[in-house]
Order: sequence, then structure tokens, then C-alpha cells
Amino acid sequence: MGWKEIILGKAEKTKEAALNALNYTSSQKDAFLSALSANVAGNKDKIIKANKKDVSGAAKGGCSSAFIDRLTLNNGRIDRMLKSIDVVKSLPDPVGKKIWETTRPNGLRIEKVRTPIGVIGIIYESRPDVTVEAGILCLKSGNGVILRGGKEAKQTNRALAGIMRDSLREAGLSEDMLNLVSEGGRMSVKYLLSLHRSIDLIIPRGGESLIRMVAENSLIPVIKHYKGVCHTYVDRDADLNMALKVAFNAKVQRPATCNAMETLLVHKDIAHKFLPEMAEMFRKAGVEMRGCGKTMEILRGIKKASEEDWSSEYLDLIVSIRIVDSAESAVEHINRYGTMHSEAVITENKETAAGFFKEVDAAALFHNASTRFTDGGEFGLGAEIGISTDKIHARGPMGLEELTTYKYLIHGNGQIRQ
Amino acid sequence: MGWKEIILGKAEKTKEAALNALNYTSSQKDAFLSALSANVAGNKDKIIKANKKDVSGAAKGGCSSAFIDRLTLNNGRIDRMLKSIDVVKSLPDPVGKKIWETTRPNGLRIEKVRTPIGVIGIIYESRPDVTVEAGILCLKSGNGVILRGGKEAKQTNRALAGIMRDSLREAGLSEDMLNLVSEGGRMSVKYLLSLHRSIDLIIPRGGESLIRMVAENSLIPVIKHYKGVCHTYVDRDADLNMALKVAFNAKVQRPATCNAMETLLVHKDIAHKFLPEMAEMFRKAGVEMRGCGKTMEILRGIKKASEEDWSSEYLDLIVSIRIVDSAESAVEHINRYGTMHSEAVITENKETAAGFFKEVDAAALFHNASTRFTDGGEFGLGAEIGISTDKIHARGPMGLEELTTYKYLIHGNGQIRQ
Repeated sequence: MGWKEIILGKAEKTKEAALNALNYTSSQKDAFLSALSANVAGNKDKIIKANKKDVSGAAKGGCSSAFIDRLTLNNGRIDRMLKSIDVVKSLPDPVGKKIWETTRPNGLRIEKVRTPIGVIGIIYESRPDVTVEAGILCLKSGNGVILRGGKEAKQTNRALAGIMRDSLREAGLSEDMLNLVSEGGRMSVKYLLSLHRSIDLIIPRGGESLIRMVAENSLIPVIKHYKGVCHTYVDRDADLNMALKVAFNAKVQRPATCNAMETLLVHKDIAHKFLPEMAEMFRKAGVEMRGCGKTMEILRGIKKASEEDWSSEYLDLIVSIRIVDSAESAVEHINRYGTMHSEAVITENKETAAGFFKEVDAAALFHNASTRFTDGGEFGLGAEIGISTDKIHARGPMGLEELTTYKYLIHGNGQIRQ
Repeated sequence: MGWKEIILGKAEKTKEAALNALNYTSSQKDAFLSALSANVAGNKDKIIKANKKDVSGAAKGGCSSAFIDRLTLNNGRIDRMLKSIDVVKSLPDPVGKKIWETTRPNGLRIEKVRTPIGVIGIIYESRPDVTVEAGILCLKSGNGVILRGGKEAKQTNRALAGIMRDSLREAGLSEDMLNLVSEGGRMSVKYLLSLHRSIDLIIPRGGESLIRMVAENSLIPVIKHYKGVCHTYVDRDADLNMALKVAFNAKVQRPATCNAMETLLVHKDIAHKFLPEMAEMFRKAGVEMRGCGKTMEILRGIKKASEEDWSSEYLDLIVSIRIVDSAESAVEHINRYGTMHSEAVITENKETAAGFFKEVDAAALFHNASTRFTDGGEFGLGAEIGISTDKIHARGPMGLEELTTYKYLIHGNGQIRQ
């Protein structure tokens, strides 16, 4: 059997399992999570052993140390996996939740209830933590899941997927609710993206080139978790001490995340007062600053920001700084260069904040708070599969509810249409 | 300027207008609808004159009479347009509606509110009624709209789009909220489908081949309003008189619609009693029946249903009939051959109905009612842009709310992440 037949077979089996899963109860799905927790804990050595093979292969293959770090599993990281399983188990099951109801003049009672999407394909890089996280979120929301991870994590993913399938079976559920696809090379991803009869949604997780490749080749709907070029705008009417604290946090607290600030926009009227203090804090924290012409007049000696800088997701201790004439110019800059992720305004002026909230086109808008809060956990949504930068279906943190769709249930007593 | 530059220019202008439109109030948008109503009524002759040119061109080009019927506008049809405008005006504006709110332990207050999607591209055939219907639904929900209709309706669409743009301007809104694209041939559609920086969502409206072409070529998310292969399952425990009435209505009342029944599934235990009476009603109404082997034993002389019949959307007075062993077999048949549109079960057994509701994977499930009720108006959602057979973003009737996305608004007082 060629790789196409194998992949098609796995996709069809997952689809069939997902249709049967429409009957699964919350306690059945939680029983799976309990079994999984026990099996991951009981097989730590086996998982780490498989992972060591992958890590040594990646090291021989000349992968970067950052790459190998993301690939590596150790006791601490497996403990974090176990914690994720507990968190997802504790979350309410979205399936069956009634989100709307009406009774029509003709007596038809219409309910709108949440139901699983079907089969979700996750295409990701060599990060074994994604294997478990994505798997449990899709399964808890009643979806079948097809995992296609990076080839460097093959052994680890095989061990983890095997444990998830065993745990499904132990809980009396179909093991085909989860299938790992590792056949074929790059071409197999494109093939997977053509199987729109079996797969209902594709979520790519990884860098820009992976996401672009998936979006360009998929016949299946894709929800992109794209980059975050996030801004903080310090308004003329800002509490400058708050602005210093919030902008510093947005840049420095965890710069490698998609909700970290990349560009600081400052109103011209307070720039002379605000920027030197801000720059002092950034300098002490080792943040490289790149400024517009006006910024360079205030902060002598910093690098000039190029046009490219305004669209850059540094994911690092680098910040671009621009002085703007008004809140409106800040909004224009953000709508032009931003990625519709997380945007903050610091101001004591309620009207300015309201305008910013209305006019900026992004998933999460913050008034007097750090963009770092865009996160399923921080929003109280529980665990998240990622942060959507798309506008269709899900925007911002994507939790269990966003992994469902809905159906209309119409209760009649013989109604016919006139 | 070539057609690519013209189309790109229109798309970019629409995007810019749509960003500015985030500020539009409900009354501004309703003022546009009032102006439009007056302008359509005041320009009936002009519209009909333009339409006559299109109709005579299509007739010369050898288009079918059904095609020409859909293309033709007359006083009655323009009155129906006016009525649509009034209905949409009367609907509540979804933009700004709060759909969720929470306050976190750290004091952050998070609101989730509806906001326009941005720019919606409508790709459709030579049906001028769609020009106005799609235009007003997109505009009322705050979206910019790019219309790409069939070439045979070029003059009519130009007249209608001109009136819509005039009406936008009269209401003080940007006329670039609506742009009609008629440049280029077939290739221009593919080009339009590549403009993901300016267009946020594509909704194709038309036949299977158009929808398939759009889905296969789009780099922009697409919501498909695909065909409806809808079923009615008459259970062993059905009230057979109700079943006769409901199944007849689902097939005969308006067979050319996507929510009409195409296949009748009948439980084996009641088939002998039910089918002869049902067949009699169908015969009288001129419905052609195509049966499975067992059905043919009861209804002698009817045509045999081929494998292809089970997947056919006849849109005509034709019905395929299959006898099934159980409710489970009916569910399996529907999940295999259906298009996830509208599915009905006729039974007095509540457990059977509950199982059907859980296990059938479709947008609208009916217990003891006709599938013909799947419709935005009948569901109380107001006007609809179509009925989505996708699961992502919108499922079933797509009204104004489904033409919006949401954003999170987070109110803080200096919170930073630890």
C-alpha cells in the first residue's frame, strides 16, 4: 500500500469514528483523560527514551539548539503535559450546550446547540507538547483528530499517539478518534489538505512558512494562528507611570510570544517626557530600540527603523518606536501594519479609548493593560489550541467552544410549509 | 490600466472604506437603506431598461429560458426588492452587540462584542436580485462588499450597483463600501480570489460548478452554500398520517429549493402500510419515484434508484425511496449520502427522535416537521444571504449576525502579566 492509501485510510477511519462519537457522553470523554493521565505518568521512561532517539537524530542532522530545545521532553515537561490533561478534564464539555432557543408562531420550537466540528487536522512542527495538547482539546470537544507533526519528532509522536489511542480504547471509545500521520514527505501534507470529505478543519501550528503553505494548498477550511505584530499606543492623556509599566511588561515579560509588543506608538505631545524614561528601562533590560526619525531626535544614537520594521514580529528583545500626531494616526498605523492580534491604548481619556476600541480591527483590544493578557487561560476560557488571527469562525484565543460548531434542532408536531 | 490593476484598486478602496465603516452608526446604515428604497423606486424604468439589454443579449446568446427567467427584472420583482430593503432595515443591527462578558480576578473586565467581518466578496451568477439582497445584508452588518455577478447581467448590475453607491453617498457613507467588479473574464474571478489582504470572506452563490471553482481557487476563506440532498425518515413509530402530509410537503411544495426532500427513507415494518398511500399522493402530484429493490416490491412498476440517485439533488418532482431496517440505518444513510443541510425524522418515539438529533450530522434537524422550514425567515433570523452547508463560522441559514465576527475589549487599570 502506498502512502496515499495509508493516509486516506486513516482519514476515513477518523471520520467514521467522529460520526460515532456524536453519541459520546462527557463522562466517557473524561474517563479517557483520566486513563491518559495514568498512562502518560506510567510511561514516562518510554516516552523519554523515544524522545532521546529523536533528539539525537536532530542533533546529527544539524538542527539548531532552539529547535532541539522545543523537541526535547524531560520529566518537567511531561509533568506539564499531565497538568494540561488535568486542566482540560476540569473544563466543561461544550457539546450539547444550548446557545439559542425560540418558539415560532407556528409552534415550531427551535434550539441551537453546540456539536463537534467533526475531524480536525493539526499540522505542526517538531513540538511533541502540541501532540498531546491539540489531541486532548480536540477529543474533549468530541472531534476526531489527525495529527501531522514534524518528521524530527517521529518517535516521540508515535509513542504519545500510541498512548492516546490506548487510553481511548481503555475508556471504551474508538482509538480511531486519533490518528497520527507520518507517512510520506512534504507531499503527504498537500495530500492531507485535499481530503475535504474526511477532514472538516485544518489548524496549522508553527512558523509563517508552514502556515502560508497550508493556507495556499488546502481545500479544507483553515484557521490560522498567524504572527502577532502587536502595538501599545501611549496617548497624550496617558498616565505616564502606568504607560511605562504596561509597555515594559508587553515587551519584556516574555518577548518570544505572539502577544508581546513589537511596536510602541507614542503621541507627539508627551514623547519628550515619556520616551527618555522608557528608553532607560528598555536599555537596562537589554532591549534594542529602532525608531522613526522623530524618535531618533529624542533618543539619540538608537537605530533607525526601516519600513520592514513596522511589519516585523521580532519575538525578541527588540522594539520599534514611532511618534504619531494623534490617536487617529496610531489607529491607522495599527490597521496598516498590525496582524489583528492584540493592541493596547494607554490613556485616561475615555473617548480616546472608546474610539480605539471601535476603530482598531483586531482580535483583542486593551485599555490600560498589557497585550500579554491575550491568552485562553487569562481570558477565563480554559486551555487554548492557539490564538486565531483570522476573522472567520474563531478570533483570538481558541478554546473548547471554538472547536465546536452548532446545529439547529427543530421540534414540531406535523408542521408543513404553506 | 489593465483589469488586474482596476480590480486591485477596487478591492483596496473597499477595504479602506470598510475600516472607516467601523465607526458607522445603525441609523446611518438605515439612512442608506431608506435612500436606496427611494432610489430603486424612482429608477424602476432605468433598471428595467438596462435589464432589457441584458435579456436580449442573453436571448441572442442562446441562453435557456430558465436562465433568462432568473435574469429578468420586472415591476413585480423590483417590488420584491423594495420589500427586501424594508425587511433588512427593520432588522436589529448586530454590530456592537455584547455576546459575553467576564471580570477576571485581576480586575480586567473582558467584553466580547460583534463587529463587521470587513470586506465580503460575493461571486454569483446572472441573478440581479442577488446584487441587491447580498449588497444590503453585507452593508447593514457594516461590511464592505465586492460584487462579481455573471456577465450576462452586466448592464442590470451596473445600474443597481450605481444606485446603491449613490444611496451610500446620499446617506453620508462612503460609496466605496460597495464595488462591482465586471472587468476581465473568468480569470478575473481567480484573481479576485487571491486578494486576501483586501477581502476577508468569499461567499459564492450559484450552482455546484461555480462553488467548486471558488473553493478550489480561493486563498480567502469561503463559506459554501452547497446543495441540499435532504431526507425524511419515516420511523416504525411514526404517525403515518402526519408522515404522509410532512413528506409530501417536503417534496412537492417547492421542489426547486435546497431544503426540499430528495430521498424518503421508510422503516421496513411500516413500509407496506405507508408506501402505497404515499405513492398515490406522489403520483397525483406528478412526482417520479425511484426505489430501492425492496421499495420496488411494494410499488411495482417504479424506476430503480441507482447508486447515483442517493446523492442527487433533483430540484425537481423526483424522489428516491429506500426501505431501511432501523433508525440507525437511516442515520447511516443520511450521514453517508446527505449534504449536512436539512434532515427530518417522523416518529412518536421520543428516544428515536433524540438519537436522530444526536447522531445525524447536519445543519438543521426536524422532528415531525417539513425540511422546507430551513430558512432564515422561518427561523426568525430575518433575511438570509443563503444556507451554509459548511461547519466553520456559520451553519444553516446565514443572517446578519453570521455576517459579523467579534472582538474582545479588555478594560484595565494598569494590569501587567506576572
